[in-house]
Amino acid sequence: MTPGSVLETITSKEARLVIDAAAAKAEEIGQPMDIAVVDAGGNLKAHVRMDGANIGSISIAINKAYTSIAFQCETGDLQGVTRQDGPIYGLSDAHGGRLAVFPGGIPLVRDGNIMGAIGVSTGTIEQDQEVASAGAAAYLEFAIA
Amino acid sequence: MTPGSVLETITSKEARLVIDAAAAKAEEIGQPMDIAVVDAGGNLKAHVRMDGANIGSISIAINKAYTSIAFQCETGDLQGVTRQDGPIYGLSDAHGGRLAVFPGGIPLVRDGNIMGAIGVSTGTIEQDQEVASAGAAAYLEFAIA
Amino acid sequence: MTPGSVLETITSKEARLVIDAAAAKAEEIGQPMDIAVVDAGGNLKAHVRMDGANIGSISIAINKAYTSIAFQCETGDLQGVTRQDGPIYGLSDAHGGRLAVFPGGIPLVRDGNIMGAIGVSTGTIEQDQEVASAGAAAYLEFAIA
Amino acid sequence: MTPGSVLETITSKEARLVIDAAAAKAEEIGQPMDIAVVDAGGNLKAHVRMDGANIGSISIAINKAYTSIAFQCETGDLQGVTRQDGPIYGLSDAHGGRLAVFPGGIPLVRDGNIMGAIGVSTGTIEQDQEVASAGAAAYLEFAIA
Repeated sequence: MTPGSVLETITSKEARLVIDAAAAKAEEIGQPMDIAVVDAGGNLKAHVRMDGANIGSISIAINKAYTSIAFQCETGDLQGVTRQDGPIYGLSDAHGGRLAVFPGGIPLVRDGNIMGAIGVSTGTIEQDQEVASAGAAAYLEFAIA
Repeated sequence: MTPGSVLETITSKEARLVIDAAAAKAEEIGQPMDIAVVDAGGNLKAHVRMDGANIGSISIAINKAYTSIAFQCETGDLQGVTRQDGPIYGLSDAHGGRLAVFPGGIPLVRDGNIMGAIGVSTGTIEQDQEVASAGAAAYLEFAIA
Repeated sequence: MTPGSVLETITSKEARLVIDAAAAKAEEIGQPMDIAVVDAGGNLKAHVRMDGANIGSISIAINKAYTSIAFQCETGDLQGVTRQDGPIYGLSDAHGGRLAVFPGGIPLVRDGNIMGAIGVSTGTIEQDQEVASAGAAAYLEFAIA
Repeated sequence: MTPGSVLETITSKEARLVIDAAAAKAEEIGQPMDIAVVDAGGNLKAHVRMDGANIGSISIAINKAYTSIAFQCETGDLQGVTRQDGPIYGLSDAHGGRLAVFPGGIPLVRDGNIMGAIGVSTGTIEQDQEVASAGAAAYLEFAIA
């Protein structure tokens, strides 16, 4: 019945290391976070809601990670261009919904290929971005190692 | 602006222990799984998609855990009663969708209170149930310890 | 702004060859078809609606291909088990919708990895399956070549 | 059971020629694109996601083509009028969703009739428009030939 397995672009072990690195940064700055990791297809690989993080940020963290895959960029890069006077104002409607167009979503890159993405939410956008960056940096490290 | 934090009914540490216990059982039986843990509010606390588990089972695992909270029972308990000739046939439509009415979702109980739930998907329903049971049993153990 | 490209699991050239092989079979049996190819993440890579094929089958073809990825199997394998007395009756509700649980969706496999899937719709389920099989067989051939 | 076939306003052969012309322009400018062609009913006729194009632009390309049919104009024509201070601000909500109100969607015209539309996405709006124009121009050519 099963001819094989869908190709994995990021392993659950890698996803956990990324989440742990991000969570360590979140603890360091004293801001609990929702943290999600998706694979190269934008599908959820792992998620954790730290104690005290927002329930409403569960889907935002997942959607930030998805959006980073969907447009091959950091979600913060979409903020200016989608504002009311920006060139792609209305992007989320055009896409069908679920896009996050503010900081906190960052691609996970290896050898020039985007293999997944991390999304972080609950804090300020600066905090979300800092924590997501810590996760992305950790991924880069074991990519090099 | 923030008066406090929403009461946590299950910690991220507990959620991880539950997932790890379930994942260990999944590896033992050689069937990769999607595993989700929700809190007493039915909101996602943690999720992992083991390598080789179904992409389509991400939402099913989450929805099994949700359904266990939603109706305060194992999802398998809903199977007979929601069938074509059952007394609550049409339950998912009546609810608005997202219910899972086959085995794999089990409440996490402490001192008679449902504090969360685990949902497992990708294998047969017997395998899903076995892996979810391993997670629920682990929760019970540290509740006692 | 772009750190790299999302890893491609199936190329547009491969997708076209798969569609052309399927379309050739569809012409041979005299049944115009909607034909879709998705990548390993379940995301649309290419689609064609042959002249005379159903408008209503656009999404069905796409969803058949998606479902084959989502559950790592042929969509026909889901038919019996999701029927009203089957073990996973209610699968589509549990998933959130868009699943196709009748023949016409087949994984595209290379070296034991599912790299994408084809979905075919408009004809009878036997015709849909035959045309999808022709596409999947063509993929296997250039995988070997 | 089948009284005939729904009138085709654009053939799959024509759709392929339009897509190929657009893809050639995309390659010329070095920007991979999602390219979609819909018929006069706004229904998808063909789609291709070029290698390296955005996953998030699949639906946007399709929706740009749909929007061009839906309002019988280029999607870029809707940009000013739907902005915050424009006369039809809120158009997408009023419609029910899925509209694209920035450049990249262009009608395919023959003898004064809109027979279909092309939608292009992934690049800047200028690039999207340029590639869509190449597809529309190709359609005009074989309409004349």
